[in-house]
Amino acid sequence: MNEFDIIQQFFHRPAKPEWLALGIGDDGAVIEPSPAQQVIVTDTLLEGRHFFAGTDARAIAHKALAVNLSDLAAMGAKPRWFTLNLTLPKVDKNWLAAFSEGLFRLADEHGVCLIGGDTTRGPLSISITAAGELPTGRPAFLRGGAQVGGRLGIVGGLGLAAMAVAAREAGNQASAAASQALDFPQPQLAAGLRLHGIATAACDVSDGLLADLGHIAQASSLGFDLDGEALAALAVEQDSQAAKLLFAGGDDYALLFVTSAGIAVPDWANDIGVAVAAREPNAIQLNGGPSWLQAGFAEALDKPGFQHF
Amino acid sequence: MNEFDIIQQFFHRPAKPEWLALGIGDDGAVIEPSPAQQVIVTDTLLEGRHFFAGTDARAIAHKALAVNLSDLAAMGAKPRWFTLNLTLPKVDKNWLAAFSEGLFRLADEHGVCLIGGDTTRGPLSISITAAGELPTGRPAFLRGGAQVGGRLGIVGGLGLAAMAVAAREAGNQASAAASQALDFPQPQLAAGLRLHGIATAACDVSDGLLADLGHIAQASSLGFDLDGEALAALAVEQDSQAAKLLFAGGDDYALLFVTSAGIAVPDWANDIGVAVAAREPNAIQLNGGPSWLQAGFAEALDKPGFQHF
Repeated sequence: MNEFDIIQQFFHRPAKPEWLALGIGDDGAVIEPSPAQQVIVTDTLLEGRHFFAGTDARAIAHKALAVNLSDLAAMGAKPRWFTLNLTLPKVDKNWLAAFSEGLFRLADEHGVCLIGGDTTRGPLSISITAAGELPTGRPAFLRGGAQVGGRLGIVGGLGLAAMAVAAREAGNQASAAASQALDFPQPQLAAGLRLHGIATAACDVSDGLLADLGHIAQASSLGFDLDGEALAALAVEQDSQAAKLLFAGGDDYALLFVTSAGIAVPDWANDIGVAVAAREPNAIQLNGGPSWLQAGFAEALDKPGFQHF
Repeated sequence: MNEFDIIQQFFHRPAKPEWLALGIGDDGAVIEPSPAQQVIVTDTLLEGRHFFAGTDARAIAHKALAVNLSDLAAMGAKPRWFTLNLTLPKVDKNWLAAFSEGLFRLADEHGVCLIGGDTTRGPLSISITAAGELPTGRPAFLRGGAQVGGRLGIVGGLGLAAMAVAAREAGNQASAAASQALDFPQPQLAAGLRLHGIATAACDVSDGLLADLGHIAQASSLGFDLDGEALAALAVEQDSQAAKLLFAGGDDYALLFVTSAGIAVPDWANDIGVAVAAREPNAIQLNGGPSWLQAGFAEALDKPGFQHF
C-alpha cells in the first residue's frame, strides 16, 4: 500500500466545498479568493510526548485537529481548511481507518475541510496546519489585547485532562470523564465567534491556566486578580491536588478571554477575575476562596507550564 | 531555553510584509484578504529517510523549504508564506543558528515569509506548509491537464542528486556538484510563473522522472514518447548507470511540464518528448538515443519511484 493508496482509501472524499477549486491529489490545493482575513495555525503532536503510546487512533486524530481548531477559536476565527502531515511507523489499515474516522468526525462537526497532506514512514507524529476566517470587520483576539478593568472569562473545564494524565502516569485507570477530556478535547469554536464585540484578548489553555494567563499578562503588560470563589466552583474536586491541576494542568483546551474594560463576561462563560495594572514579580494573584484552593495555587506557582524543551 | 526563547532568538524577524496583519508569537497568524487564488502545499522531511543523519543544518532547512517551493512552482504559483513544524532531539544553539540561516537565505531569495510554527522535542523532523498565489486569470497547472500533442519540457537537472545519494550510501564522497544538487535543490519558481499561457500540466520531479511523468500520464489518461537524443544530452555521464539515475533517481526537483497541443517548449527549457494517445501497459516509451541510455531506461523501468511505505 503506497502513499497514493493510503490517501485514496482513507483521506479522499469526493464532495468538496465551493471555495475549494482543487483538493487532495495534486502537488497542491487551490483555494478561491475570499474577502475575509485568514488566520493560520499549526501544531505537532508526537507519540509519547503529547499522547500516550497505544492511545486509540480516533483520539489521536481528534486531538491533533482539535488543538489546531482550539487555536482558531482563541483567535475568533471560523475554521475552513487544514492540511495533515502524518508520520507512521507502519501501514496498519485498522489504525488508519480509526484515525480517519476520528479526524473526519471532528472535521465534519465544525465544517472544516482536509485539502492536502503528506505521509511518511517514521515515529508516529501528526502535524496539522489549519486556516480559518474572521467575521468581516472583526479583528482577531490577541494575547496582547487585554485592558485594565477587563473581566477574565473562561469557557470549558480546567484540570480534568490533567487528572487523566496523572492517573495514567501512575498506572491507574482514569475516570471516564477525565479520559474523555484528555482524549477528545472540544475546541470552543462557537464561543470564540460569539466573543466578537465582547473580548479583546484570548488564548486557549493548553499549558495550564497560570502559564497561558501569564502569556496574556506578559503580552498585555498587566496583571490579573483571580476570583477564588469562582475558581473553587470550577474545580473538579475540592482538594489541593485538584486545585493544583486546575491552575497548572493544561491539556483541557478551555478558552480564556478578557473582555473590554467595563464589559461583563457573558452568562454562557465563567467570570474568574479581572485584569489589573501590572505588578512584578507576581502578575497573577488569587483573592479569596477556600484554603485547599489557595494551597493548590501556591503549589502550581512552583511548577511553570508545560515546557516543550 | 524554552520554545518562546527559540522562536525569539532564531525565527523571529521584526520586518513583516503589508499583507501580514499578525506574524509569529500568538495563537495564530492573521493574513489580509487577497484577490488571487491561493495554492497550499505541504511536505515533511525526516532524518534518515529524506536526508542523511549529520547533514548540515543549513542544507536540511534549505531542502525542507525548497521541496515545498518546488511544489508551488509546479502549480505555477508565486510563494507568499510558510509555517514550520520543527521536531528536535535537543536544543543545540549552533545547529539552530545554521538551520535558521539556511531557511531564511532561501526564503529571502524568493520573498516568502515565515508566519508561524511549532517546536517539539523528538526525532529530527521538519514539516513545512506553504502558500502561494496564482497570477490573476491564470489557472494552476494540474497533473491531469496534459493534452495529446503537447510537448514535454523540463527545467533543471536530472540524476545528479541521486548520484550523491548513491555515493553516500556506498560510503564514498559525492562530487561537489552532486552534493549541491542533493543538499540545496533549487525550486524552479521563475520558470513556473513563466509557463502560464504555455503549459497545461506540470509536476516537480521528486520521485524520479518515470514515476512523476507516470503521475501526469495516469491523471491525464495519455502516454509519452520520450526523445532519446534530447535526454542523452541531459545525462550527467554517458553510461547506463547515469541514465538509470536520470530516469529513476528523483530528488533533483526539476520542473516537468507539458505544453498546450501545438505549442513549443520555450528555449529556456529542454524539450524531451511529446504527449501521445494512451496505451497500456507501457504509457512511457523511449524513442532513439544511444544504447547506454536505452539500457538505463530499461533498468529504471524495473525500479518504480520512491515508495514512502
